[in-house]
Amino acid sequence: MNYPNKIKKEFKKVISHSNRGMDLEDLINLSNTFYLEEDIAVIYKKPTPITIVDASFDSHGRVITKAYFKEPSTLDYNGIYKGKYIDFDAKSTQNKTSFPLSNLHEHQYQHMINVINHGGITFLIISMNGEYYYLDGHDIIDFINNNERKSIPFSYIEEKGYIIEKKIRPRLDYIKVIDKIYF
Amino acid sequence: MNYPNKIKKEFKKVISHSNRGMDLEDLINLSNTFYLEEDIAVIYKKPTPITIVDASFDSHGRVITKAYFKEPSTLDYNGIYKGKYIDFDAKSTQNKTSFPLSNLHEHQYQHMINVINHGGITFLIISMNGEYYYLDGHDIIDFINNNERKSIPFSYIEEKGYIIEKKIRPRLDYIKVIDKIYF
Repeated sequence: MNYPNKIKKEFKKVISHSNRGMDLEDLINLSNTFYLEEDIAVIYKKPTPITIVDASFDSHGRVITKAYFKEPSTLDYNGIYKGKYIDFDAKSTQNKTSFPLSNLHEHQYQHMINVINHGGITFLIISMNGEYYYLDGHDIIDFINNNERKSIPFSYIEEKGYIIEKKIRPRLDYIKVIDKIYF
Repeated sequence: MNYPNKIKKEFKKVISHSNRGMDLEDLINLSNTFYLEEDIAVIYKKPTPITIVDASFDSHGRVITKAYFKEPSTLDYNGIYKGKYIDFDAKSTQNKTSFPLSNLHEHQYQHMINVINHGGITFLIISMNGEYYYLDGHDIIDFINNNERKSIPFSYIEEKGYIIEKKIRPRLDYIKVIDKIYF
């Protein structure tokens, strides 16, 4: 990747102490590769949605010469584990006291409701205060339905969520939390 | 979209008689929108995977100024129906006697095997000879395991596959075939 500096900075995410130099997306992608290689689960990150404005051909083939990022209407990761549909997203916040709900678009929230209604498992992985938390979709929807607040207090995440174990393989063992809750 | 002519031509897909002017991707996207609106299934097309080489900012925000298309390692559509993980792709061929297996990359074939092994439903929607055929992943894998051929004869698709009903809503009722086979 060869981003100009301004973009590089914006794209850079929270670096945790335990996984120095790796952002949350890298950690999850590595975990998913591990789950795939060990035939535990089949989960992929969806490509970033873009709107192509201009394209042409160069010596490497088709090349996009102008495109914009689109707001995603679903979550970033999905796949299958033990026959169950899995659908989640990863969010980082530098905020210490609460998780701003502006991180979750209206469409994504509705998508979580749809996934649950159709029998799937949905959650967020939240990087906050030096840990990675699994917060289940049911608890997110419960909170939003019962609160006027625009952010989820850290105390709620600590109470309802699960700390995801950090390992070498997988880097973030979020499947272990799914096992605990659903299997 | 404002593609140069050369690309526009390459991007254009087979136009069926029953759905004049709409390509297969449009028909499936409309069907998925219908299934979502009617709360029947939650199935989306994944964005096209790209590798971003250069990006900058303009008056609309971040803009990609150079990117290439990547070969996908999974199938284009996935989601959930009646609690089951669904994962499929749509392919068109002008060929009348057989479906060239070059349409299905090695990674995509392996992905279909993975999906089945983990309890999901996978298939291809094949636009061929004026009809849309549902060909189940089991039959595709069976064929590839038991044949040296580089294409699936149309007779096999007719025998093992299902013609997908064309309607107004949904345009292609592929869920009806899933019901027939799996529920």
